[in-house]
Amino acid sequence: MFELDDAFVATSQAVGDLSLSHVRLHDDARYPWIVLIPRREAARELEDLTRQDLATLTDEILAAGRAVRALGFRIDKLNVGALGNVTPQLHVHVVGRRLGDPAWPGPVWGHSPAQAYDGPALDAALAAAREALGL
Amino acid sequence: MFELDDAFVATSQAVGDLSLSHVRLHDDARYPWIVLIPRREAARELEDLTRQDLATLTDEILAAGRAVRALGFRIDKLNVGALGNVTPQLHVHVVGRRLGDPAWPGPVWGHSPAQAYDGPALDAALAAAREALGL
Repeated sequence: MFELDDAFVATSQAVGDLSLSHVRLHDDARYPWIVLIPRREAARELEDLTRQDLATLTDEILAAGRAVRALGFRIDKLNVGALGNVTPQLHVHVVGRRLGDPAWPGPVWGHSPAQAYDGPALDAALAAAREALGL
Repeated sequence: MFELDDAFVATSQAVGDLSLSHVRLHDDARYPWIVLIPRREAARELEDLTRQDLATLTDEILAAGRAVRALGFRIDKLNVGALGNVTPQLHVHVVGRRLGDPAWPGPVWGHSPAQAYDGPALDAALAAAREALGL
């Protein structure tokens, strides 16, 4: 049975579920940042998914890119990463990056503490992500 | 026409070509690290590829993971990333990570200057990668 790692609950907000992945908004108002967590028990690596699930995940990564683009930031480059060194449950980050953002041009992961959205901005971001994802 | 960005030539060694991607070994003896560059003109983002190319790229990411595992390091986690903030030509990193490696648990990108393989170790790594990829 799939069980979401608590680490995601602490750092992000639920957007909803796509056909494979649970979708979360990373709670850092500095970056438009979606996290996809495939709902598959004990999956840690991409190679733990079936080919069908990998195809679905690819579609969901593209959809997450559209959602990231809907969050109201200028975006010069998407960054997509499946790391998991800290939280090994399989998950994929889709982050919109712009010249001059706090971590630019380095990776966002591990750069600096998140700055949480305030309440209304969080509600607006969740609503925009859901609309872009059809959720 | 596809043309490889010079930045890859400066930092990595050619392994060969899979059906979609040009494959390179990142020249840093501290990490088993493969870079896939889809041979598609002007592609910068995953969304620039067709669905068929995305399916092929997924297969090639799994194959790169097997090649990374064949390079003789202990591997605790694979890291897969498509960033491109510095070199925007579409490329995917597949890196084997281990507890206590120089950047652990942070990302390898931007962490510290590469330490090039010496000649015999480079030859051995290229041979192992080619064998794992059937090249």
